[in-house]
Amino acid sequence: MSNKIITISREFGSGGRTVAKELSKKLGIPCFDQEIIEQLSEKSGLAKEFIKERGEYTTGGNWFTNALSSNNYGGSIQDKLWLLQRNLILELAEKGPCIFVGRCADYILKDRDDCLKVFIHADMEKRIERIVTHYGESSVAPEKRLRDKDKRRKAYYQLYTDSEWGVAQHYDISLNSGKLGIEKCVEIIADLYNE
Amino acid sequence: MSNKIITISREFGSGGRTVAKELSKKLGIPCFDQEIIEQLSEKSGLAKEFIKERGEYTTGGNWFTNALSSNNYGGSIQDKLWLLQRNLILELAEKGPCIFVGRCADYILKDRDDCLKVFIHADMEKRIERIVTHYGESSVAPEKRLRDKDKRRKAYYQLYTDSEWGVAQHYDISLNSGKLGIEKCVEIIADLYNE
Repeated sequence: MSNKIITISREFGSGGRTVAKELSKKLGIPCFDQEIIEQLSEKSGLAKEFIKERGEYTTGGNWFTNALSSNNYGGSIQDKLWLLQRNLILELAEKGPCIFVGRCADYILKDRDDCLKVFIHADMEKRIERIVTHYGESSVAPEKRLRDKDKRRKAYYQLYTDSEWGVAQHYDISLNSGKLGIEKCVEIIADLYNE
Repeated sequence: MSNKIITISREFGSGGRTVAKELSKKLGIPCFDQEIIEQLSEKSGLAKEFIKERGEYTTGGNWFTNALSSNNYGGSIQDKLWLLQRNLILELAEKGPCIFVGRCADYILKDRDDCLKVFIHADMEKRIERIVTHYGESSVAPEKRLRDKDKRRKAYYQLYTDSEWGVAQHYDISLNSGKLGIEKCVEIIADLYNE
């Protein structure tokens, strides 16, 4: 089996997006991240910020209240966004080797044998350091914000895939970028991709 | 940070023990697996089979009923075994570089910076193939037996560590041995150990 597609699921602040970008450069294949948001915005007319947020996070309720809220007639805007996003990811994957960051691409492409599913995570301390120093986020209560992001990302994943985000068994490889370093993560994944 | 100790947590049938043994040969460091059972049997007078089973698995209740059953005066035999096992793992880790297979060693050694925490897993199909062809287990209802093993191992881990077994964030690296192959898993871990 050869890998053609890489999906990078990641904890916010773990540097998963950086891993994806570095991999894209190293392997010479496109990384779909911002482009998905732009294409979806064009197709749907929705604001990029809305897509960025509602294509990966619930609004803050739990999976149950979110499931209820999405069951109104014809589905919620979030449900429609999910369908658009799903179709776009399937389409892009058909075009050739590429990398997807988040957006449940691991689940959406789960039936492909040529897809290497990666999860990047890091300890809370390292994630706080990264969002404050690299992303320029406020240093006020960063742990609370990260826990909230985790919770909403997990809830979104569960709502649309009916499975659990961050459970090792769903990925081919999970890496602690805080312990191993971004560069080492890139090296290991690139090596597996090129096998 | 240099790694001196490797803990291999694993799903039953994923080949985690084989990965540990191959690593032991490759790195020239001991792998504590059967030896822990033998030493504990000697110290406690308990049968090896009992230790093998009750040092990693609950008896089949959920974590709550198990927690209740272990709260009798002075603690249950399983609780005493946990303490003996914990002390032995801490002692062995002090002696020098080594590998531990299962037995919550990842949790017991969680405060050491020189410990590389690994989780090995595989898809159900690959695990069934392995337990039937490699371990010579009965081919009758293997999936049911594997699910039961997972459940009891998870419950044991939760009971004694108060955290969740198999969640990617608890390990430095998690690998799907069914997809990547045993040899590749050994290569990646050995490379990280030697960094």
